[in-house]
Amino acid sequence: MAEEMYRDVDAAGLERLVAELFTHGGLTPGDAAFMGECLVDADLRGVHSHGTRWAPRYVVSLKAGHLNPNAKATVVVDRGAIAIVDGDRGVGHIAVKFAMDVAIAKAKQYGNATVGVRNNSHCGAVAYYAQQAANAGCIGFAATTGGTMIAPWGGLDRRVGLNPISWAAPTGKGFTYNLDMAPSIVAGSKIEMARDRGEQIPAEWGYDSDGNPTTDPSAIMPGGGTLAGVGGYKGVGLGVAADILCSILPAGRYHEGQEPTQGGGMIVQAIDIEHFQPLAEFTGRMDRMVTYYKSGRKRPGVDDVYLPGELEAGRAAVRQDGGIPLDQPTRTALRRAAEEAGLAYGIER
Amino acid sequence: MAEEMYRDVDAAGLERLVAELFTHGGLTPGDAAFMGECLVDADLRGVHSHGTRWAPRYVVSLKAGHLNPNAKATVVVDRGAIAIVDGDRGVGHIAVKFAMDVAIAKAKQYGNATVGVRNNSHCGAVAYYAQQAANAGCIGFAATTGGTMIAPWGGLDRRVGLNPISWAAPTGKGFTYNLDMAPSIVAGSKIEMARDRGEQIPAEWGYDSDGNPTTDPSAIMPGGGTLAGVGGYKGVGLGVAADILCSILPAGRYHEGQEPTQGGGMIVQAIDIEHFQPLAEFTGRMDRMVTYYKSGRKRPGVDDVYLPGELEAGRAAVRQDGGIPLDQPTRTALRRAAEEAGLAYGIER
Repeated sequence: MAEEMYRDVDAAGLERLVAELFTHGGLTPGDAAFMGECLVDADLRGVHSHGTRWAPRYVVSLKAGHLNPNAKATVVVDRGAIAIVDGDRGVGHIAVKFAMDVAIAKAKQYGNATVGVRNNSHCGAVAYYAQQAANAGCIGFAATTGGTMIAPWGGLDRRVGLNPISWAAPTGKGFTYNLDMAPSIVAGSKIEMARDRGEQIPAEWGYDSDGNPTTDPSAIMPGGGTLAGVGGYKGVGLGVAADILCSILPAGRYHEGQEPTQGGGMIVQAIDIEHFQPLAEFTGRMDRMVTYYKSGRKRPGVDDVYLPGELEAGRAAVRQDGGIPLDQPTRTALRRAAEEAGLAYGIER
Repeated sequence: MAEEMYRDVDAAGLERLVAELFTHGGLTPGDAAFMGECLVDADLRGVHSHGTRWAPRYVVSLKAGHLNPNAKATVVVDRGAIAIVDGDRGVGHIAVKFAMDVAIAKAKQYGNATVGVRNNSHCGAVAYYAQQAANAGCIGFAATTGGTMIAPWGGLDRRVGLNPISWAAPTGKGFTYNLDMAPSIVAGSKIEMARDRGEQIPAEWGYDSDGNPTTDPSAIMPGGGTLAGVGGYKGVGLGVAADILCSILPAGRYHEGQEPTQGGGMIVQAIDIEHFQPLAEFTGRMDRMVTYYKSGRKRPGVDDVYLPGELEAGRAAVRQDGGIPLDQPTRTALRRAAEEAGLAYGIER
């Protein structure tokens, strides 16, 4: 009997299971608990592409030594309001969370801070780290290198990273403004999902390996094609900006005689709002701006104008107690990983 | 006899004339000389939309008191690695140049700095200020509020600013990486130029006042329509990010019971590269990255892959001695402004 595609799972149970999987993978209880919280946060917000579906893969990588289970992220350069963190080839999220903690502390002291990360691996949704700064009363910025999937403007071959950037800022309205965007029209995961479902894609999304617009997702991934930058050369330029900030500035792996590799480097920034004005004044201004944005006419069928991060925050609030609809491939992978680790699965409602 | 659309003018002569016009408008010799250099820089780079065509208008505004000829940009908040500059309602460029000077000095001391500007006016191309930081061995970031021309995602009315952002970083290859992009598919000036020429526009560029895609530029400007965000909701989100950084953070005019007004607030950031690694090491890495970007296949008919800022730098180098092709409306406006001020025009070759 075919299993349903979606079933609700318990958020707290999912977080506990993911933490136990990472403990099994060799992480300390503290790091494992953080990974549970961080990956479930993405699922709660509806960003399943960066959620718990990754947990079984990370654990396999830890067991195989591709990720260092004993990694300890450390500050290797510390000068005033900037720092460089070495990720020690561990699970990427841990070093970037640590780097943003460093940036927030420095921003509280100096007003703003920039912290680069090198020698790190895939770190999931950068929105998490920008949000971390916003939760601490800062404007947060975070970016990471992604897979090399974009051609330079005028070129045909993959050279520029699919590097997401995120800004976050607190409001007083129950959500945090949080923009998290790839420099391409769509994320690579959307190409893969269309391919796996046997669907065609809009011709604007990307090019085959000869640079022709294509509706065949497999001509892009794994076919060697490229993703179209958002706004053409603008998206390419944004990808290059993140390559510079994430890889060149922290002196990461990129261009040390290698192709850029996924997740090599990251950058996080925090600007302490209280250095500019009282936080309550800032959130008051934000609230008036949101009210102003929402004061105009809406498109037919649109119930409200939503800011980046607003729908995600609303979804997370509902799912925290109401359960997270998790798809069948993710549930199956988590169940198998639990079995292999000798852990109880039991997260479905 | 109709005058040709383009004639070459002498760069040094143009800079001198513009400076004299601003001196006539009441600026100090130092500020006037800077305005000559700054506006001619845009023309040299081929960014005529932000070049000397603005000079006569600014001088009229100075004479009429809409811009304060006696403005003195001052630091009104100074805390560690952040500051707020008050533009004193002067010519906008002067306060943002000053703010970036403050940011660079603070970045040399602390590693990075963020400086907001308020009570300011139109400041031209933000690329100039990001470049200023790159020239000083920093990664520069600059953004400004623009006219309110974008609808929030799902909305129909103008609410979000057409706010450009710019990043710049030095290379060792004779140009500075410099991305300067509006959050819309095209800049507002392209809509106006098409309208003035009686041309249609692609339907993707914007919407009429009822939210329908339109090929009629006058349905957007001045027809009350809106510009499409680059990548739809992504461009809208970038516009909002700049609204927050430029207007909310420096506590500018925005949303103090008013519509956002053009050029009210700006943000500049500098990250000192030497705090992270020796500058020569950084530019070496940048050069290897550029070489890598350029190493792939090119589209048919494309002579090379160019990075943001590369074509502009090449153009400026040629035009510095070879002359700047200036269009007839700009030449006429400058000639008339010179006559009214009792100044010699004499810039055409």
